[in-house]
Amino acid sequence: MLNPTRTFAILISLSAAINPASALWPLPKQLSTGTTALKLSSHFDIRITVRDAPRDLQEAVDRTKSRLQKDKLERLVVGRSSADARAIQGARSIGLLTLALDGSAKPRSIAQEAVVDLGSRSEGYTLHVPSDGSTAVLRANSTLGLFRGLTTFEQLWYDDLHGATYTLEAPIDIADAPAYPYRGFMLDTARNFFPVSDIKRTLDAMSWVKINTLHWHVVDSQSFPLVVPGFTELSAKGAYSPSSVYSPSDVRDIVSYAAARGIDVLAEIDTPGHTSVISKAHPEHVACAEAKPWAQFANEPPAGQLRLASPATIDFTAKLIKAASSLFTSKLFSTGGDEINANCYTQDAQTQTDLAGRTFEQALDTFTQATHSALRDNGKTPVVWEEMVLEHNVTLSNNTVVMVWISSDHVAAVAQKGYRLVHAASDFFYLDCGGGGWVGDFPSGNSWCDPFKTWQKSYSFNPTANLTDDQAKLVLGGQHLLWTEQSGPQNLDPVAWPRAASSAELFWTGPGQDIEKALPRLHDLAYRFNARGVRAIALQPQWCALRPGACDLTA
Amino acid sequence: MLNPTRTFAILISLSAAINPASALWPLPKQLSTGTTALKLSSHFDIRITVRDAPRDLQEAVDRTKSRLQKDKLERLVVGRSSADARAIQGARSIGLLTLALDGSAKPRSIAQEAVVDLGSRSEGYTLHVPSDGSTAVLRANSTLGLFRGLTTFEQLWYDDLHGATYTLEAPIDIADAPAYPYRGFMLDTARNFFPVSDIKRTLDAMSWVKINTLHWHVVDSQSFPLVVPGFTELSAKGAYSPSSVYSPSDVRDIVSYAAARGIDVLAEIDTPGHTSVISKAHPEHVACAEAKPWAQFANEPPAGQLRLASPATIDFTAKLIKAASSLFTSKLFSTGGDEINANCYTQDAQTQTDLAGRTFEQALDTFTQATHSALRDNGKTPVVWEEMVLEHNVTLSNNTVVMVWISSDHVAAVAQKGYRLVHAASDFFYLDCGGGGWVGDFPSGNSWCDPFKTWQKSYSFNPTANLTDDQAKLVLGGQHLLWTEQSGPQNLDPVAWPRAASSAELFWTGPGQDIEKALPRLHDLAYRFNARGVRAIALQPQWCALRPGACDLTA
Repeated sequence: MLNPTRTFAILISLSAAINPASALWPLPKQLSTGTTALKLSSHFDIRITVRDAPRDLQEAVDRTKSRLQKDKLERLVVGRSSADARAIQGARSIGLLTLALDGSAKPRSIAQEAVVDLGSRSEGYTLHVPSDGSTAVLRANSTLGLFRGLTTFEQLWYDDLHGATYTLEAPIDIADAPAYPYRGFMLDTARNFFPVSDIKRTLDAMSWVKINTLHWHVVDSQSFPLVVPGFTELSAKGAYSPSSVYSPSDVRDIVSYAAARGIDVLAEIDTPGHTSVISKAHPEHVACAEAKPWAQFANEPPAGQLRLASPATIDFTAKLIKAASSLFTSKLFSTGGDEINANCYTQDAQTQTDLAGRTFEQALDTFTQATHSALRDNGKTPVVWEEMVLEHNVTLSNNTVVMVWISSDHVAAVAQKGYRLVHAASDFFYLDCGGGGWVGDFPSGNSWCDPFKTWQKSYSFNPTANLTDDQAKLVLGGQHLLWTEQSGPQNLDPVAWPRAASSAELFWTGPGQDIEKALPRLHDLAYRFNARGVRAIALQPQWCALRPGACDLTA
Repeated sequence: MLNPTRTFAILISLSAAINPASALWPLPKQLSTGTTALKLSSHFDIRITVRDAPRDLQEAVDRTKSRLQKDKLERLVVGRSSADARAIQGARSIGLLTLALDGSAKPRSIAQEAVVDLGSRSEGYTLHVPSDGSTAVLRANSTLGLFRGLTTFEQLWYDDLHGATYTLEAPIDIADAPAYPYRGFMLDTARNFFPVSDIKRTLDAMSWVKINTLHWHVVDSQSFPLVVPGFTELSAKGAYSPSSVYSPSDVRDIVSYAAARGIDVLAEIDTPGHTSVISKAHPEHVACAEAKPWAQFANEPPAGQLRLASPATIDFTAKLIKAASSLFTSKLFSTGGDEINANCYTQDAQTQTDLAGRTFEQALDTFTQATHSALRDNGKTPVVWEEMVLEHNVTLSNNTVVMVWISSDHVAAVAQKGYRLVHAASDFFYLDCGGGGWVGDFPSGNSWCDPFKTWQKSYSFNPTANLTDDQAKLVLGGQHLLWTEQSGPQNLDPVAWPRAASSAELFWTGPGQDIEKALPRLHDLAYRFNARGVRAIALQPQWCALRPGACDLTA
């Protein structure tokens, strides 16, 4: 019964059990901790020593102070906080955290820093929490970096039942910065609609784990909830209901809410496929609209694709993309480009006429260049799904960002073509897999991307597998994705959290972290999410959550 | 493009689209509907024409009247209620529903009727809703039957945005009764704890689809939340926290709340396996308690089984079972009996001594007869998991109820032994399957019972497959089951609903119903659940929910 694997597991679990810093998620790049107990003073304050500090930084500080009061998170050990009662007896109290900016330039707001080019976005910070009760110091080169540091500071503390907020491992020194500039979460609001409140709650949760991009797949074949100035007929006729829409003021609200939390909103209008709903207002622009049997014209119902060979449709689409992208402050905007069905165009008489001897690929090239130049005229960088570079022969600007979704095996092929890429592979990051098939009248139907992708599967992903050093530089980061054929406000939180936090740490801290050490921290994160009103699920029986390592395969 | 399958699907979907009675779930045994629009009068009332009507019947009537006001459910068609505006113009209004009991005996309460023997429980009713606005009549032989009828009546109506509550298909005549007497839902409150409020909300949801049994797997190896008079040390030392318990008054509250909703609470204390937590208070009664590596002693951590060969432990267990079963009004109580690990006993010196030459099977027989006679002394009928009859040679009374969980292929073997059985097979009814493995440090771990069991899979189950007519009579019914290694209050509703309603209809209406016709009704049910505060998930994009049949495989 004394096998080395087991002994190893137990040693690990012990170290995890006595390590409250295991509450940090994502793990900082550099972390050193001591063994001194330290409390937050009842008068604890956070002071911004920054001239002309932007308003959103002050608001972030206020949120942090509020969470330090309200989280009331007991440590996950047998006995919970009572296990720490003796350790914190007579512990010193820290009264102040100061925030300081390096450099003398007038600081930009978090919102401004949140949308600068990925290559030059500054999210790093240093944090020092002394053990003697003297002032803690958070420093960064940008207000965005200070915001990331506040998020870390919030995770350092536990609470007991007597009102004490404490850590057991002062002094704490952290020097942190993300391994990858893009850490995202994709939400589909077209298969089923999500009220603004659900999106804001999701943005909060994302910010707690330093995710910096909401990839908003806002419209699709089933519904068009986005109210686009100049194109309001699309949502008027294509939304599920008059109230199931995102008005321009809703979008401004979401974008500013996100930006104040260090999150860039990368919106997508998928073209030329996945556009059936546009036929409600503009039948003239859509081929094979709701054609049956749908399986011959699309990967899911309803069928319908923009008439990519029609000059009128190209003009309409380019103007729509320009108008829609103008609603967002992000430098990135996605034109999609996935799952184009050739049969839809073959069967469409008008498209056959419009092609006028050109091939489908030539027409797609013309179509895409029109939408992408509209984006560039708007100061935006195009984002596309992988088919646009792997299955089609489309001319794209070098700075185009490609999202790899079909399979992680396709990453190398995209990198070989020299494009920057985002990991979004269904075999690692799709949150909807494993939920069973949703198509009707199909008793034996299972999820097309079975099995369910556990957090451990996503967490073990290697972002640079099979890439040369030069190709590895093209990897911007990655994200979890939630397609919502079987999701709505009812299960948004449970489907997304805490699983989506696994890619947040993978792309912030970097790959190769220890899964067995990560689980206790992820439990802690899930409990903290619940304390903050996000319904993250239990990953294990609570018996396991209270005993790090005890439910490991080899324990 | 004109294939017969597709044409068939479209015809079906049309009939479904024009059939609001598709909101009924479960479908009544006999249903005839007309095509006349009928509204509920703003003065609509429900009158009980029963002498000495029990209080819980009046309370059920009040809940029904409240839901008729508050559901505000618009019909799921394109345009929602506006599609019916013309149809309900000038429609007559019904002002009264009367409830009448057949027979002259003093009526028993719903709570009393809810716990009578399954063989003689009376849940049938007739309901007539005339089209001319005259009084509707609900008749039954029991208050429980009247309650089931009220549940049906609540589902007949839709709302529009102008305050009208209406049906489009008066007159409506229903003669209804369940195909099977046992229709259950199992909840595990030991892997993770569920507050009383979650259990009550689940009981409400169960009652809305005429589920009549809560199989409460209340304790297990991980925690012992049940406060048992005389054995309070078990919950004091074995609950996750002092507040994570069900006190005797909590249990009384849950049992009476359930009974008033026609639900019997079948509690389970699993023995001799799945009892590790008992070692916290009584180490003397538990073999291999938390032994490592756990995988050698149990199917999941922590290991630990009652010392079934010890006279002291047998006496302790029999008294515990008697005391625990006394908390419940049900005639049924489960002693479990699944997943007994032989190695645990082989390695336990005391058990080897206690066996004193007897075989393990002989000891298990003695142990089980002690617990079961304690139940019979208490007027209870024992319930066990399938291993007790298929893997062990235990003497059981003929009226013992056996739950088949490992595989539906084992049903015939249980029936051949002549035991009454409940369908609870993991390959059809386990709600936790497909969620990925939960054991730690196991990146490639998937759900042991992959894939996810869709509602369509459960709905297509045949309860009497491979059974003779005589064996078929032994089938009491079936249930969905929620084991909670990866569930808690956060995802209880989304994991359970509306999937668990599929077995509710299967065992009420009977097998062989049309899956394609059922989907629109199940969508309606899910929307109604949400209107009532139960977070049932979306089974499809709303585009599909509004277009019955349009998202079928062959549409």
